[in-house]
Amino acid sequence: MQIGLVGLGKMGGNMRERLRNAGHEVVGYDTNPELSDVKNLVELADRLAAPRVVWVMVPAGAVTQSVIDQLTSVLKPGDTVIDGGNSRWTDDEKHAEELGKHGIRFVDAGVSGGVWGLQNGYALMVGGEKEHVDPLKPIFDALKPEGPYGYVHAGKVGAGHFAKMVHNGIEYAMMQAYAEGWELLEKVDSVTDVREVFRSWQEGTVIRSWLLDLAVHALDADEHLQKLRGYAEDSGEGRWTVEAAIDNAVPLPAITASLFARFASRQEDSPQMKMVAALRNQFGGHAVEAAEK
Amino acid sequence: MQIGLVGLGKMGGNMRERLRNAGHEVVGYDTNPELSDVKNLVELADRLAAPRVVWVMVPAGAVTQSVIDQLTSVLKPGDTVIDGGNSRWTDDEKHAEELGKHGIRFVDAGVSGGVWGLQNGYALMVGGEKEHVDPLKPIFDALKPEGPYGYVHAGKVGAGHFAKMVHNGIEYAMMQAYAEGWELLEKVDSVTDVREVFRSWQEGTVIRSWLLDLAVHALDADEHLQKLRGYAEDSGEGRWTVEAAIDNAVPLPAITASLFARFASRQEDSPQMKMVAALRNQFGGHAVEAAEK
Amino acid sequence: MQIGLVGLGKMGGNMRERLRNAGHEVVGYDTNPELSDVKNLVELADRLAAPRVVWVMVPAGAVTQSVIDQLTSVLKPGDTVIDGGNSRWTDDEKHAEELGKHGIRFVDAGVSGGVWGLQNGYALMVGGEKEHVDPLKPIFDALKPEGPYGYVHAGKVGAGHFAKMVHNGIEYAMMQAYAEGWELLEKVDSVTDVREVFRSWQEGTVIRSWLLDLAVHALDADEHLQKLRGYAEDSGEGRWTVEAAIDNAVPLPAITASLFARFASRQEDSPQMKMVAALRNQFGGHAVEAAEK
Amino acid sequence: MQIGLVGLGKMGGNMRERLRNAGHEVVGYDTNPELSDVKNLVELADRLAAPRVVWVMVPAGAVTQSVIDQLTSVLKPGDTVIDGGNSRWTDDEKHAEELGKHGIRFVDAGVSGGVWGLQNGYALMVGGEKEHVDPLKPIFDALKPEGPYGYVHAGKVGAGHFAKMVHNGIEYAMMQAYAEGWELLEKVDSVTDVREVFRSWQEGTVIRSWLLDLAVHALDADEHLQKLRGYAEDSGEGRWTVEAAIDNAVPLPAITASLFARFASRQEDSPQMKMVAALRNQFGGHAVEAAEK
Repeated sequence: MQIGLVGLGKMGGNMRERLRNAGHEVVGYDTNPELSDVKNLVELADRLAAPRVVWVMVPAGAVTQSVIDQLTSVLKPGDTVIDGGNSRWTDDEKHAEELGKHGIRFVDAGVSGGVWGLQNGYALMVGGEKEHVDPLKPIFDALKPEGPYGYVHAGKVGAGHFAKMVHNGIEYAMMQAYAEGWELLEKVDSVTDVREVFRSWQEGTVIRSWLLDLAVHALDADEHLQKLRGYAEDSGEGRWTVEAAIDNAVPLPAITASLFARFASRQEDSPQMKMVAALRNQFGGHAVEAAEK
Repeated sequence: MQIGLVGLGKMGGNMRERLRNAGHEVVGYDTNPELSDVKNLVELADRLAAPRVVWVMVPAGAVTQSVIDQLTSVLKPGDTVIDGGNSRWTDDEKHAEELGKHGIRFVDAGVSGGVWGLQNGYALMVGGEKEHVDPLKPIFDALKPEGPYGYVHAGKVGAGHFAKMVHNGIEYAMMQAYAEGWELLEKVDSVTDVREVFRSWQEGTVIRSWLLDLAVHALDADEHLQKLRGYAEDSGEGRWTVEAAIDNAVPLPAITASLFARFASRQEDSPQMKMVAALRNQFGGHAVEAAEK
Repeated sequence: MQIGLVGLGKMGGNMRERLRNAGHEVVGYDTNPELSDVKNLVELADRLAAPRVVWVMVPAGAVTQSVIDQLTSVLKPGDTVIDGGNSRWTDDEKHAEELGKHGIRFVDAGVSGGVWGLQNGYALMVGGEKEHVDPLKPIFDALKPEGPYGYVHAGKVGAGHFAKMVHNGIEYAMMQAYAEGWELLEKVDSVTDVREVFRSWQEGTVIRSWLLDLAVHALDADEHLQKLRGYAEDSGEGRWTVEAAIDNAVPLPAITASLFARFASRQEDSPQMKMVAALRNQFGGHAVEAAEK
Repeated sequence: MQIGLVGLGKMGGNMRERLRNAGHEVVGYDTNPELSDVKNLVELADRLAAPRVVWVMVPAGAVTQSVIDQLTSVLKPGDTVIDGGNSRWTDDEKHAEELGKHGIRFVDAGVSGGVWGLQNGYALMVGGEKEHVDPLKPIFDALKPEGPYGYVHAGKVGAGHFAKMVHNGIEYAMMQAYAEGWELLEKVDSVTDVREVFRSWQEGTVIRSWLLDLAVHALDADEHLQKLRGYAEDSGEGRWTVEAAIDNAVPLPAITASLFARFASRQEDSPQMKMVAALRNQFGGHAVEAAEK
């Protein structure tokens, strides 16, 4: 099958390779001419036979919006745009509507797999009309892992990104779970080999998982993680998961705790704990520590 | 190798079978004569050649204490007691001291595997002196899963149960993570097939795990879990994990949130939310709901 | 001073009374003709001398938007609209812009005080340009409590509602704090008179507050709150506080926990705890409870 | 009335003064001879007429235990020991039993008031048998604030310290509530005067309280708390509150979040966030930050 692919960065570049390995014809476009197969989106559209399929794999938000705007003018009725980036699910309906006015179909695809996807396949969570999604099956089959899992048509437009967002929310809390357990084990004297405890858990336990395997890799490289700072970014999906939970009055205590732990990890000093310290000093005369200059 | 096994319930019975399948000679004792190989602990000790090894697999707390007390009088210097139950790690040091006064060795073993252990092997986390643990290796090898994982000598006396306790704490938060994500997906309209979303996650995703596989099994049996009440017991290790964290000033927000969610799940009505409702009514005249009769 | 007041419900009606008691001339409008001083907003505008001041005190969201739309056409350049409802701070900038196109000034006012405001005064948090806010001082002075506190010009347009929103977020966590403590005291046998414990705290303690006084009132009416269901609504500001925190990467663990406790209090059965129960059953054979028919 | 007072530090010294101001005869003992009225506990007992009352106001744990051990030998049947320190409620029953063997009565008193107690009075939460507590009323009346509040006989032995412990748990969450709100207000640009917002809240709002007054004092001294480090100790009662909640299966999400925030505030770098950073790097190639040397 023929497909256009916009965005050839770490993810998009590997996806082009995996699609080509599966025998598909990929026309890639990137603003970096060294990565790009074509000069611009007009040429990309010209190189594809109708009905065209174009996979957008660029940063969520303004960049995705701009690419979709441009595709609105270069694509034709009956063509399909797939947004495979980390877009917020609330953007999908807007994009579907904008493209729909020009007769262009829209499908959203949440993609998991990170740096391991080229080799193992990408898990795909897809949203859109059944008649829009079904013709894309050969593309999804090439990208997904082998075997019965790793692909789902989750529901209407937006459902793919929504499912991927929840996946990431769960991921936040699972990482936090291992991290909390690791810190506690490292803290006590009686446990003398925390890395080997983690390694042993990889079989026969209730908590075995791919993330646990990765934790062992990380500990093998740096047994007490002394080289790292306890500083974690968050990439949008965790925040959106909590916002979706608030919209739907669903309590998410563990996922939210994981998000807040990341926020706190990025603060040099905690403003709120300054206030707690100040209050303790006010009522109890408890000592405070001076801020560092 | 020869071993005595006290407690032949769901766990102990399967462990006897797995040990015998591996060629070990197991003398089992249980208060239920239909399960027991011997009449009492005296006979159990008589049937074992010195130095004896006795694995205790009975409920933590009073029952374990009672068995260890009895073993103190029937065993001899140089013999070894292994506590494989779900004892609190703080009990281990006491047991080691009591038995040590009689020259009897003590080793603690945290055991994971549940109903799947007979077939897949039990993950073992062991605490004790190296010269006490090493001679027991053939027993541990028979119980553990095949392959390089599933066994660790975690540290001093108590370290085995401590590691198992933290394992369970992590387990609580991982289960909570999937549960929160599942509830959110079930709540929104755009995602029309939550079970298939979970199934798809089993390959290629960051959150693939054995627990996720079990979640899919559960959803296959009851797609929306309509047959179940949202009611979850907790079995000690989760509480002890939080207590250990408090003792060590380690923040465990996700694990603790998971424990509290279980507490709340068992309340018919929430006393604290009665107070919140009462306060809202007091200052804002907000409506309250009457308790059901 | 002369002022128009749109919305004469529980809050607006009392505010009209308090303003009149202070000697101001209030022209009130409400869709309920029995409450209203005028037939419509045109008449309201006619009855006021330029430059007019109109205080809007109607439900946030669509109703407030509609009133502001209508005021855009009946007011004149130099007039001022004050939104005293519970609007989201993000709406304020939009309203200021819309009205500003017609030369009409916009000021937002967060109002606290509930059913006690008529008697004690309303705490006011105001946002807007200094030259728009200053001429309104006589109105604010009449509404606010006597004494040096209860009024602040918090900052630019939106700052009033933002400050009020944070006030409510803090309120959620304070209520939750008392509620958690109360439940724990009620649970233990050794404390035989929890109501008297709460009553005693009203002087000399670190936790004395108006909310504590209200808690004692509530316990005096119903010592163990047996007449109430543990069910608490939330009214928007708590959710917006958490959303604002997420936008600003500020961790709010206690406020968010309080919001989630309210969400959970409204669930007949907890979907997420069904999943936890299902998982425990899968790996450990733990008993589950059937959902009630 | 006559009373012995052991421990004349910040709290005990002020209590001696307040008791003497009320006309009571206080014999104080402290290991610091400059503060002490007597040379030792034997002399203290000699100076008091039977039945003696001795108030112990020393650090909880080993020091309190040691003083109670010594009092066991110098006091006589019918005498009363009051433990007014911050003892864990679980110690009270032990102390009551030890003293009871010698016919000595035991009463526990949780004391709140900090540095303000000398002037405003101390809130007292008392546990013990009614016939042991009632004769002490003149002492309690002298220490408590004027007016109807500030004293409660909460229940059996231990109930006083339990009630005080819960008071402190609530205090943790209230401080956290204000602190979270303050950080959020400080973070946004539209609110230009956070200190004045806090000041305004002191009247007419739902969240007015003594702690809020103290927050304003603190902000008056240091508007943005720039001189302080965001570092907060915890003093035992917060931890015990969470442990009591776990023992009683009571969910305390806000209080526990407040305790954990303090733990985190004291960490130079967060071990658990190192693990989260390591995992993000493993699966996504996300950048990590190097630990500082």
